[in-house]
Amino acid sequence: MSEIRRDPVIGRWVIIAPERATRPEPVPVRTPERQPAPCVFCGGQEGLDPHEIFAVRATDTLRDTPGWQVRVLPNKYPVLRIENKLEREGVGMFDRMTGVGAHEVIVETPDHDVQLADLPEPHIAAVIRTYRERMADLAGDERFKYVLIFKNQGYLAGATITHPHSQLIATPVTPKRVKEELNGAEKYYDFKRRCVFCDIIRQETHMTPERLVFENDAFVVLSPFAARVPYETWIVPKAHACDFTAIREADYLALAQALKSILLRVRTALNDPPLNYLIHTAPFRRPRPGYWATIQHDYHWHLEVIPRLTRAAGFEEGSGFYINPVAPEEAAALLRSVEINAAAPAVGRVEADILAAGPVGR
Amino acid sequence: MSEIRRDPVIGRWVIIAPERATRPEPVPVRTPERQPAPCVFCGGQEGLDPHEIFAVRATDTLRDTPGWQVRVLPNKYPVLRIENKLEREGVGMFDRMTGVGAHEVIVETPDHDVQLADLPEPHIAAVIRTYRERMADLAGDERFKYVLIFKNQGYLAGATITHPHSQLIATPVTPKRVKEELNGAEKYYDFKRRCVFCDIIRQETHMTPERLVFENDAFVVLSPFAARVPYETWIVPKAHACDFTAIREADYLALAQALKSILLRVRTALNDPPLNYLIHTAPFRRPRPGYWATIQHDYHWHLEVIPRLTRAAGFEEGSGFYINPVAPEEAAALLRSVEINAAAPAVGRVEADILAAGPVGR
Repeated sequence: MSEIRRDPVIGRWVIIAPERATRPEPVPVRTPERQPAPCVFCGGQEGLDPHEIFAVRATDTLRDTPGWQVRVLPNKYPVLRIENKLEREGVGMFDRMTGVGAHEVIVETPDHDVQLADLPEPHIAAVIRTYRERMADLAGDERFKYVLIFKNQGYLAGATITHPHSQLIATPVTPKRVKEELNGAEKYYDFKRRCVFCDIIRQETHMTPERLVFENDAFVVLSPFAARVPYETWIVPKAHACDFTAIREADYLALAQALKSILLRVRTALNDPPLNYLIHTAPFRRPRPGYWATIQHDYHWHLEVIPRLTRAAGFEEGSGFYINPVAPEEAAALLRSVEINAAAPAVGRVEADILAAGPVGR
Repeated sequence: MSEIRRDPVIGRWVIIAPERATRPEPVPVRTPERQPAPCVFCGGQEGLDPHEIFAVRATDTLRDTPGWQVRVLPNKYPVLRIENKLEREGVGMFDRMTGVGAHEVIVETPDHDVQLADLPEPHIAAVIRTYRERMADLAGDERFKYVLIFKNQGYLAGATITHPHSQLIATPVTPKRVKEELNGAEKYYDFKRRCVFCDIIRQETHMTPERLVFENDAFVVLSPFAARVPYETWIVPKAHACDFTAIREADYLALAQALKSILLRVRTALNDPPLNYLIHTAPFRRPRPGYWATIQHDYHWHLEVIPRLTRAAGFEEGSGFYINPVAPEEAAALLRSVEINAAAPAVGRVEADILAAGPVGR
């Protein structure tokens, strides 16, 4: 059974998940071949899978049968398990807790041989809607403080399965990286009485647009001033909001457009690199009074897209510094210059019907 | 020219080093071939290099000629430059400073086709002595707050050059990861009035030795309780000391023995994986009064060895959590069980003579 251990110096939490060592994956040395279809995530293979947790599917279809557009399954090799009871204990001077959480796979399409960026915008909107539905559902579990939604695309970005999918992990502690953002945003607000992300949007769209890649009515895509890695970008909602699950129905499509745009730009400009993206949003609750009163005005959810073109090395690991060999302004200029093929696959009739039907949960 | 930028949310510093994009390195997809000897770091190629900054060499030999055992050169593709003037400026709401620092290569041996672990212990001791000499020298530069000494071994650990070498980077700000350790150690001391590392050594050697890998009179090698990655180990001096540069002459050989032991164990048990190691020590100065009074009793220098067997992915990047599929107790058991070949290459006469001669710096 996995457990969560606390580093006694830094206070960093580490998930010790010995069960995952038995998963079918060798020590990576080089990129493996693409897996052939059909795989367990493919349309028509629903009988092989664990039962679906949630799906966006045509209303006249049954759970665990074909006819779905987006489908959520429990991870077969979970790093944290929902069945566990949350228990904390000391081990001499050390601290650990049981590996309680949730680990789910969001299968983005029944089609094995596409990428998320190839899907029509309404289909990508259905993926985003699925993120929101799962996050909102897991928020009801008192044991969880946070749900991180993320995507690993390409072997060197951590993907072991070729079929397009994202993942979510719900954790009983707020992740360190999120805490750092919350603390930083709170400090900025205390000093300025303004949200730091709102200030970034204002500066980058009006004063220094050289790091802006794309914008529509509801979102900006920008290369952050202190980008960690080459071609890192953030998708930030223009309207201030700390909580991704409060996204308006009307904004699914705008976010899908922004996401598709940046994924296609990165793929075209950089020869389809491995990449990760992830959503940073407010945690479910904070262990002190007045939490929502504070966080609602100081934090701002966003989606970070991180291509994997460089290798982490000893300096980065030891210092926490990042070394980025591409200036964010140059990165943004290249990504802006990409001509995105306007003739993306049209939304097929069946697919449009499915979307109209809306989500069907468990 | 490179610059150092501050992330406006987290406060994390990022080195934007566009010059490094021109270095001869493609986007990594698979491990490249080993580079053939002779390379610019090989014995006999001294004429091709930039001038040496420091060397451990026979007393009757001249700078930039053969006869050296360990040799320090400026990095040809520095991420920070020593010639720059330290200037800080705002860019709208953002903050940056010039890329001032030092970036040096420590060539560990004139021999191309060995690893550090293959060298006799007295030779490894000369490498460690070189680390200390360079750190002590750079401490005199008022612009620098920290020197990180690290090693990238193997392509997937960030090495671009095959010839055995380590590196150092001096920075004008204290790295985030080091600050986190300093803050954590200070908090622990405030609460317990004991050094957290001393407590770890006490617990791991006396109470719970299942994570202990190796020890000699002066050092322990242990698998930390909350190891980030499979087979991570720390070498920690038994005697409390915050500052690596204060290492006693007598301890060079003991540290060399511990380092050689763990490098050979990792190589044998894990089929020569890519790895990093790095030294965490106290920064040169802290911008508040009473710094040394505090840090001298709460911080404890150490060397971290980090094999690279897993790929970082979206969850780790987004959360700051690590997922480690190998329990530290199992890792330590495997590393302890390795039979290190007692018949390591003997110290040759010439090499012994060189060591006796001691370091020759500029």
